[in-house]
Amino acid sequence: MASKKIQSALISVYHKDGLEPIVEELKRLGVQIYSTGGTQQFLESLGATVNAVEDLTSYPSILDGRVKTLHPKVFGGILARREENHQEQLKQYDIPEIDLVIVDLYPFEETVANTDDEAAIIEKIDIGGISLIRAAAKNYKDVVVVPSKAEYGMLEKLLKEKDGVTELPDRKALALRSFGVSSHYDTAIFNYFNQGEGAEAAFKQSIPEAQALRYGENPHQAGTFYGKLEDMFDILGGKALSFNNLVDIDAAVGLMREFQDADPTFAILKHTNSCGVATRPTLLQAWTDALAADNVSAFGGILIANTTVDLATAQEIDKIFYEVLIAPDFAPEAQEFLSKKKKRILLRIKAFYAHERSFKSLLNGVIEQDTNLKMETAEELETVTQKAPTAAEKEDLIFALKCAKHLKSNTIVLARGQQLLGMGCGQTSRVDALKQAIDKARHFGFELDGAVMASDAFFPFADSVEIACEAGVTAVVQPGGSIRDKDSIEYCDANGMSMVFTGVRHFKH
Amino acid sequence: MASKKIQSALISVYHKDGLEPIVEELKRLGVQIYSTGGTQQFLESLGATVNAVEDLTSYPSILDGRVKTLHPKVFGGILARREENHQEQLKQYDIPEIDLVIVDLYPFEETVANTDDEAAIIEKIDIGGISLIRAAAKNYKDVVVVPSKAEYGMLEKLLKEKDGVTELPDRKALALRSFGVSSHYDTAIFNYFNQGEGAEAAFKQSIPEAQALRYGENPHQAGTFYGKLEDMFDILGGKALSFNNLVDIDAAVGLMREFQDADPTFAILKHTNSCGVATRPTLLQAWTDALAADNVSAFGGILIANTTVDLATAQEIDKIFYEVLIAPDFAPEAQEFLSKKKKRILLRIKAFYAHERSFKSLLNGVIEQDTNLKMETAEELETVTQKAPTAAEKEDLIFALKCAKHLKSNTIVLARGQQLLGMGCGQTSRVDALKQAIDKARHFGFELDGAVMASDAFFPFADSVEIACEAGVTAVVQPGGSIRDKDSIEYCDANGMSMVFTGVRHFKH
Repeated sequence: MASKKIQSALISVYHKDGLEPIVEELKRLGVQIYSTGGTQQFLESLGATVNAVEDLTSYPSILDGRVKTLHPKVFGGILARREENHQEQLKQYDIPEIDLVIVDLYPFEETVANTDDEAAIIEKIDIGGISLIRAAAKNYKDVVVVPSKAEYGMLEKLLKEKDGVTELPDRKALALRSFGVSSHYDTAIFNYFNQGEGAEAAFKQSIPEAQALRYGENPHQAGTFYGKLEDMFDILGGKALSFNNLVDIDAAVGLMREFQDADPTFAILKHTNSCGVATRPTLLQAWTDALAADNVSAFGGILIANTTVDLATAQEIDKIFYEVLIAPDFAPEAQEFLSKKKKRILLRIKAFYAHERSFKSLLNGVIEQDTNLKMETAEELETVTQKAPTAAEKEDLIFALKCAKHLKSNTIVLARGQQLLGMGCGQTSRVDALKQAIDKARHFGFELDGAVMASDAFFPFADSVEIACEAGVTAVVQPGGSIRDKDSIEYCDANGMSMVFTGVRHFKH
Repeated sequence: MASKKIQSALISVYHKDGLEPIVEELKRLGVQIYSTGGTQQFLESLGATVNAVEDLTSYPSILDGRVKTLHPKVFGGILARREENHQEQLKQYDIPEIDLVIVDLYPFEETVANTDDEAAIIEKIDIGGISLIRAAAKNYKDVVVVPSKAEYGMLEKLLKEKDGVTELPDRKALALRSFGVSSHYDTAIFNYFNQGEGAEAAFKQSIPEAQALRYGENPHQAGTFYGKLEDMFDILGGKALSFNNLVDIDAAVGLMREFQDADPTFAILKHTNSCGVATRPTLLQAWTDALAADNVSAFGGILIANTTVDLATAQEIDKIFYEVLIAPDFAPEAQEFLSKKKKRILLRIKAFYAHERSFKSLLNGVIEQDTNLKMETAEELETVTQKAPTAAEKEDLIFALKCAKHLKSNTIVLARGQQLLGMGCGQTSRVDALKQAIDKARHFGFELDGAVMASDAFFPFADSVEIACEAGVTAVVQPGGSIRDKDSIEYCDANGMSMVFTGVRHFKH
């Protein structure tokens, strides 16, 4: 029989709030209530008649509450199938059936977030509550389980509108929620224990917050974001974020994280690749000079600034069509002005957050790595040519390197005066990336005299520095490490160029 | 006190095998053993003296074993802190301390894999065993917990070499393992319940198998693969797979999945992008014509075939330097020949497996989507020009589309006679991708008369078909959907080209 009427309930909750309307319904329906300790007192304060679990088990709560409900008289009534054989056993051992189990677990994650006191944290590992939830969920054919406050609303509806009669799909949905809660809880405990020495490699993720996206990378693919975007951004306006928007925003935030402490900087990205970046005394200038590098690709792009967008900059930005604009803040009049275009997405970024580890599904498993959070400083550059770069060139080399790090490999960036002049990316050959960077720079009106070049990985041959030199490039940064490094160095020395090594490759595929 | 000597043990295991050496040690050390049911019988058959849990609790195993150990006399002895207050309570209630808990859970996942019988599956949701594991793990300061057979070796070592004396780090490591086991178990149950109607969006992953990689995408990033690669590949030889190898192999398998049922096909990839693909009557020809498209980028590439590699092909392949060669099989003499180069990775692929959903970490969460498993057929192509493509052109259009789908966007593929002639990819502008494809094709000696062009997304303007036409392209495939589609169609009609729409975009960023 799929329809079941709730006649008895066991309630054991850590936080009592929110329970009031449920208790009112249970009272109205004459449901037998079992409870213990603080929950019992709270229920009685609401005028409910409560059977103490201790009276049922003839056992007190012992060991400071570590053992309260772990008893056959409780678990028998939850786990028994409602069929003759099991019901006879319940009768024989004088065990009452329990039709409804309501639990709110000890707040493990909150405790971890709020204290370093290991004993206090360990004490908040709920044993009895999880056991109750799992037992009731296993027996969902007959038993209703409410594994957290998030399901109080579902229960209230069942009690109010159906007078406590539940159907199998209701109970199964709650069982699903229960294993969602228990797996999340134990994943959190695993991750708490899995730190420092003795940490074990295992891929454990549990994110209950889900946001359906209109679709995935393409319209025929369904897409979902898991997590709390609102912790990272205030979404000030615009249409709903798409899958591709999120991918682009992730790339934009990664790039701008490099410029967090720089002078006003603007970057324009398309398909995760920056096609314009500039650092300037004012954000308006930064915008203008970022756009100058490729005002064609900028169409429909993702824009990101490292400082507050003022009205003057907003008015210039507004002249092109863009998908998303991200900034740490917007002047009120700038926000008002930009919000007139209803579809354009405006994001106030609260923190340039980065996962310490990054992962993706791949083949029949998952691949994970440390997020690439390394960036070299001007002081760390090792000059390998007779000529050293000037101080200004060094600054440009680091600027170009930051851009290159966040472009798809193989990539070459040409820059001068804290402005990206041209870039080639996503190439299977390094020379192709360079040729593309030169073509782009020239196409948008830049001569390359005195420009610098950054490469995400080493040059396998001297051809790249030759081509760069002919184009006007005077300083080069690259990781070094090719067996033919000498050829590139010799060419630079013979042609008055400087070159520096970083020792750090920045592939990003 | 961090050192503890095991004096009592509770053992409750589903599979009995592997327990024998542990029982021998427990006997030798005179450890008091508590057990129940089948485990008890097994232990006694090994000559151990066993205290029945039923005698301890004065309660029989009830409800077909659903309630056996859930009793204060069991859980009190596990959860009590070894300090005066708790020990007095144990004495008062006549509860024996339990120092060691050994559990092997009901095999939930195996049962799901082997049957559709829901009742049988539900019965295999372990309640008591999980409760025992979690209680013992919570009390790891005092209690040793063995949550699965995987930890039998660790326990045996402690019993043998230390005479049952354990230190805090030992017990904490086992507690970590315990929450690894419990979170994995409940994640599996969640995923079992979370199917069909009423499924809830939540990101739940638990993969205990981990393989440390030499490093991540770059040497300064640590990398890990989670999963069982050996289910998908026989690794026949070569150096250890790197992070970037795996990323490339994933791309190669995705591409070759499109050609599983085609005539012999070879593809060469570099940095996840194919730079050569050809379908031919023999694999040797396929290899030769795939390589012809770009024999420069092929250096250090990933090679994949859709059929058995014979000796003649192997001898040709051997002439270039490659990182990985993947095929469904290798003729014995081909494998022997290829294995002479000790560092080159040879993989026999067992199945062109694809996750139904793909995910990656992004911003402060995770993004997931249906894997792009769609591919159009020649019959689905909608001719939008006066001229329709010939049958041979249609086959080439599908060939080119398969290649384009697996190249980084924006991408253009030029092909003819089931051979990739040139491709541009990873571009922020579609015209740039086309120009790059034309340049590459010409650079490697291909004229483009009678070639076809595939685009992963629509053409925003007519410029792409103009440039393609001038290069010699006669047929074009694209999703369609631009507000300026008409311009491209009119140009094709005026210049004797055919164009077909698919209605399906294939972005891959």
